[in-house]
Amino acid sequence: MTPLFSRMSIIGVGLIGGSLALAARERGLIGEVVGFGRRAKGLRSALDLGVIDRAETDLDKAVEGADLVVLATPVGIFEDLITSMAPSLAPGCLLTDVGSVKGALVERLERRTPAGCTFIGGHPIAGKEKSGAEASSASLFVGARCILTPSPKSDPSALKQLTALWEGIGSTVKVMDPVLHDRLLAAVSHLPHMLAYALMEALTGPPLAMEDLLSYSGGGLRDFTRIAASSPEMWRDITLFNRDEILKAIEAFQEALEGLRRRVADGDGSGLMAFFERAKEAREAMVPPGGGRNSP
Amino acid sequence: MTPLFSRMSIIGVGLIGGSLALAARERGLIGEVVGFGRRAKGLRSALDLGVIDRAETDLDKAVEGADLVVLATPVGIFEDLITSMAPSLAPGCLLTDVGSVKGALVERLERRTPAGCTFIGGHPIAGKEKSGAEASSASLFVGARCILTPSPKSDPSALKQLTALWEGIGSTVKVMDPVLHDRLLAAVSHLPHMLAYALMEALTGPPLAMEDLLSYSGGGLRDFTRIAASSPEMWRDITLFNRDEILKAIEAFQEALEGLRRRVADGDGSGLMAFFERAKEAREAMVPPGGGRNSP
Repeated sequence: MTPLFSRMSIIGVGLIGGSLALAARERGLIGEVVGFGRRAKGLRSALDLGVIDRAETDLDKAVEGADLVVLATPVGIFEDLITSMAPSLAPGCLLTDVGSVKGALVERLERRTPAGCTFIGGHPIAGKEKSGAEASSASLFVGARCILTPSPKSDPSALKQLTALWEGIGSTVKVMDPVLHDRLLAAVSHLPHMLAYALMEALTGPPLAMEDLLSYSGGGLRDFTRIAASSPEMWRDITLFNRDEILKAIEAFQEALEGLRRRVADGDGSGLMAFFERAKEAREAMVPPGGGRNSP
Repeated sequence: MTPLFSRMSIIGVGLIGGSLALAARERGLIGEVVGFGRRAKGLRSALDLGVIDRAETDLDKAVEGADLVVLATPVGIFEDLITSMAPSLAPGCLLTDVGSVKGALVERLERRTPAGCTFIGGHPIAGKEKSGAEASSASLFVGARCILTPSPKSDPSALKQLTALWEGIGSTVKVMDPVLHDRLLAAVSHLPHMLAYALMEALTGPPLAMEDLLSYSGGGLRDFTRIAASSPEMWRDITLFNRDEILKAIEAFQEALEGLRRRVADGDGSGLMAFFERAKEAREAMVPPGGGRNSP
């Protein structure tokens, strides 16, 4: 089988970039994988683990001759990265990313992309608590969704090839408008992260803080706050880049919580019952009881 | 080995009551287990699964001759249950419960307990999304904490016996003031439940609701909202009985979230970074990276 791409450069070999590399190599979808990182030490372990074929700490060398370049760093430096690598990109190179925000950023990245190359945004909805190339797994994307956000300017054959790559490693591709992507992700991902972070803040400060409090946490709190261990740098960037949608989501949550708080304050038993029943139904529609791949 | 109790009556054979019965029988800590429930059908499956030795739909018959009675229904009916069963309780019988609220309720339950019997509150911190006797597991309490909340009136030898039962099925017993229990649980358990319920409300109503929205939920949202599938009736009761502490916890959370919302609105990158870093540290102190029995 001819590989889909002869050389893929992964810019930032962490959990997502590393897992993409592993999965694509394992299935013969990529000829050679070059990993770029700032620190030789981090790249060394990716090399040793067979995640990448070659390590580069020089951005120009890392992208030279690549027909696919994947941005897999925190989103805050994507623009600078494209600007820096632009002179070294081969004609016809497809640029993509695996970041959690799209929206207006996609347009800005397209503007930085040199003529003859194409940028198409991508966002695999997968992850785990652990980060770093060492946590990479070839099966991370199996059964997961991957959202691609082409613009009217995108080359249709490049979109087809990128789709084939993500489908080839087991994910289901959804094509979506970049702005819609950000609204959707603000609700289902960014908001829960904000709540997990705020919960840790509330539990560790007055008036709730108590000696040994967190040692009493049951599975509920542990599940709930798992995402609060995500990378602060990555989440600062996501929050700044998707600020407006995240603000809307926080405000909608604040309204829902205030409605619940009022029912609690009023001792409104039937109001509480109705509120909890609606939530239970919605949750079970999301993950049918006894089903769903992440259900316990 | 002589069993700790010769006959245990489980009032409400659901996940917790059923798992306690299974575990205690398996380890020879209990002579006979009688299960009480309102519906013969539910009890039948508990009998068939070997969770209980005998099923009773008559409360008086269910508690007759028992030296241990365990209340395992929603907490809202505990008072009525003790009042109803009081005439049939054997002298010296130990009453306990497995409910998630203690506080002032303990005193009220003690007042309903007939002379010659003792009530000591109990709360095993364990559970799972599924409910019902069918979900029972003899290992549910292994490694889990169980909080016991004796009062100055409690018989010390009864406390010793109850401690031996919970330790005998693998849990770690912590003795705690009933009021402190409620403050602690409001923070680590009741508040996360309120947030999960409010999140489902926010995601399924305007302005966030979108077609197919929940199908895009990653592991984060699924983990986060798992507890929103808990029993609405049970949580209505918990919320009403621990209203004051839950209100305080919701308000502390509202303040933390508003602090975060302001940082988002201001585009305050370093403020966000500091907020997320604090949360990550607190979360990792709770569940060390790569450790913890519930970590992925």
